[in-house]
Amino acid sequence: MMSHPLRMPLRAAALAALVSLAGCQASPPDALRGTGDLGVVVERATGSLALVDTGDRAILERIEGLGDLSHASVKFSRDARYAFVFGRDGGLTKVDLLRGEIAARVMQSGNSIGGAVSQDGSLVAVANYEPGGVRVFDSETLAPVADIPATWEDARGRRQRAKVVGLVDAPGNRFVYSLFEAGEIHLLDMSGATPAVTRFPDIGAQPYDALIDPTGRYYLAGLFGEDGLALLDLWHPEAGVRRILPDYGRGERRLPVYKMPHLEGWTLAGGRAWLPAVGRHEVLVADADDWSLVDRVPVHGQPIFVMSRPDERQLWVNFAHPDNDVVQVIDTETREVVRTLSPGEAVLHMEFTPRGEHVWVSARDSDRITVYDTHTFEALAELDSESPSGIFFTDRAHRIGL
Amino acid sequence: MMSHPLRMPLRAAALAALVSLAGCQASPPDALRGTGDLGVVVERATGSLALVDTGDRAILERIEGLGDLSHASVKFSRDARYAFVFGRDGGLTKVDLLRGEIAARVMQSGNSIGGAVSQDGSLVAVANYEPGGVRVFDSETLAPVADIPATWEDARGRRQRAKVVGLVDAPGNRFVYSLFEAGEIHLLDMSGATPAVTRFPDIGAQPYDALIDPTGRYYLAGLFGEDGLALLDLWHPEAGVRRILPDYGRGERRLPVYKMPHLEGWTLAGGRAWLPAVGRHEVLVADADDWSLVDRVPVHGQPIFVMSRPDERQLWVNFAHPDNDVVQVIDTETREVVRTLSPGEAVLHMEFTPRGEHVWVSARDSDRITVYDTHTFEALAELDSESPSGIFFTDRAHRIGL
Repeated sequence: MMSHPLRMPLRAAALAALVSLAGCQASPPDALRGTGDLGVVVERATGSLALVDTGDRAILERIEGLGDLSHASVKFSRDARYAFVFGRDGGLTKVDLLRGEIAARVMQSGNSIGGAVSQDGSLVAVANYEPGGVRVFDSETLAPVADIPATWEDARGRRQRAKVVGLVDAPGNRFVYSLFEAGEIHLLDMSGATPAVTRFPDIGAQPYDALIDPTGRYYLAGLFGEDGLALLDLWHPEAGVRRILPDYGRGERRLPVYKMPHLEGWTLAGGRAWLPAVGRHEVLVADADDWSLVDRVPVHGQPIFVMSRPDERQLWVNFAHPDNDVVQVIDTETREVVRTLSPGEAVLHMEFTPRGEHVWVSARDSDRITVYDTHTFEALAELDSESPSGIFFTDRAHRIGL
Repeated sequence: MMSHPLRMPLRAAALAALVSLAGCQASPPDALRGTGDLGVVVERATGSLALVDTGDRAILERIEGLGDLSHASVKFSRDARYAFVFGRDGGLTKVDLLRGEIAARVMQSGNSIGGAVSQDGSLVAVANYEPGGVRVFDSETLAPVADIPATWEDARGRRQRAKVVGLVDAPGNRFVYSLFEAGEIHLLDMSGATPAVTRFPDIGAQPYDALIDPTGRYYLAGLFGEDGLALLDLWHPEAGVRRILPDYGRGERRLPVYKMPHLEGWTLAGGRAWLPAVGRHEVLVADADDWSLVDRVPVHGQPIFVMSRPDERQLWVNFAHPDNDVVQVIDTETREVVRTLSPGEAVLHMEFTPRGEHVWVSARDSDRITVYDTHTFEALAELDSESPSGIFFTDRAHRIGL
């Protein structure tokens, strides 16, 4: 029987509509947006990443499926569109901030801590505990590019693999990292046709973390097994590694390694390095030229992160348990505490907006992120977030070592 | 007559397709992009803005209709999506980098030079020659927010309006600028309900340009009518303005004002200020703490821009006519010229990628932009561009004073 004459046009119309829509995604006028005012917050308990807008002071959406985020860190792609999330479980996830979804993901080791993006943006390197080494991936596809074992010879001459810690990017498409058990620093040059590693042995006992200064010149590794820090001047690698701040680490009592202040908690501002003391309720001040200790600022508790407002006029400091419900603000000129704030319980991290007008503070046990005006100290917004920890804004894409 | 049974389905299908497409913009998978790797190049002769991708090293498209771009400057919106173009003819144009088109435009004065975006991104201020003053606009809509005349009293007690030069943004949602005929610096605070202006009179004769350091603390104005520069410490405005580098300006012969080195040609790197000498073929080196002159580096010609690679290890320098077909590279540690390059004729500007792996150089009279690898000095790309002048990358959105 011939189809009813009215049904055929409708069916054809529906088919045509489907054919058109298949090649066409609805793009309302505000679908486009800049990436410069975006950021992410790691939400540990739910294993999610909250995507935030720092201009609107709002959470836009959440991305799930990132695995174990209990010690996750984040770096950004060169165009600021993607976040690379490094999970403790060895997961490397590339998150599209514009689509709010996972773009790529690899489980690239058994146990991992941190990573970095190369200077030119083409590579992502991951620091692995197990197996010990560095894996380098294409930042576009996450296809493997290089696998650099962190090998060393122990006292009995056996080749071992060490846990890699303190991985940072350095100018010249290089990466610098440390080997915990080996007491070595390695410099990986990815700028040529073949990866090239330069080893710096005997730099000190058990480097547990590291940082690179904002110009990418000085690599500083904290030592768990002895006092002081190891310094490598990347402008003069031929000069080797030297020890600085020889008394650093001498606290009232030894801290376990997981309580040692992380080097990301250091900051350089006003020609000085500002850093958490070990086992003392102080922020230490060192001369950034010769690394001599110049002052100690008494603070509320054991400092964890000492972070500089971008204009270097203030430092914001959070503290370890049981004093971790407080944040203090230090004036870099007077070196005095000018404000004490209560953002909530278990303050884990702070992040300044790129030009510093606001700071975002996570309070894990209050399930809250507070946004402060850094001039007036007014709390401008409080955002609900389950167990928030690390906060990362996209301007990090443009900064060496971040 | 009844329509042919086959024609009706086709017509209905076509209608349905049109209806679908009307509510739907084609958005191919790669329509979304980050804004962190974008930039613009001012093309004077054609009055156009070339939109560039620094990762692909390519010109994406050109935007026209920006009026007189002979002395245009560019600032970026907080989210890095828009460029604000300040034209000499008083035009203020907001350009959408994602759509490649003008989003808004106002002719806001008769004659203008430069502008800035407020720290929090909400305001755009424009420095006007005629009538002399600063106009502030909402950065979203370009709706007028404030009109601040640059008034002063001359020697005969008459109120006059002066040309405004050297306008910069400063922390706290403030702007700083200078009044050419008046010899004054003004500090405009836009953080409160009402704009508030603080005047600093008698700062020196004929400030013609200015800069603010990367922390937004020191405002430096160059003086055309006498030697030396005027310095305002924004952390201590109560201390007033003082004179620094008292011999600066003493060249072999006086230069006309349009040949005076612009303060944007200064850079701070490695604890030093590096600046073009006046009327001498030298880059001067000053201590950034006390502003004492510490060294002079002999170079190819009269320097115009002295720009630091982001890691502060190199300075790239271009020169005034007739030596403007050369760029030299200075090592900041040895203070020696390590390279001399020939990017073309009339090299007007240079811009480093955010982490410094490349630098883009415009050669106006060769109609060319050259992209160099800053480590190897290899010319990686040459792009055709008609009379290119200023080059600006979006990471400036995140940096105080830029």
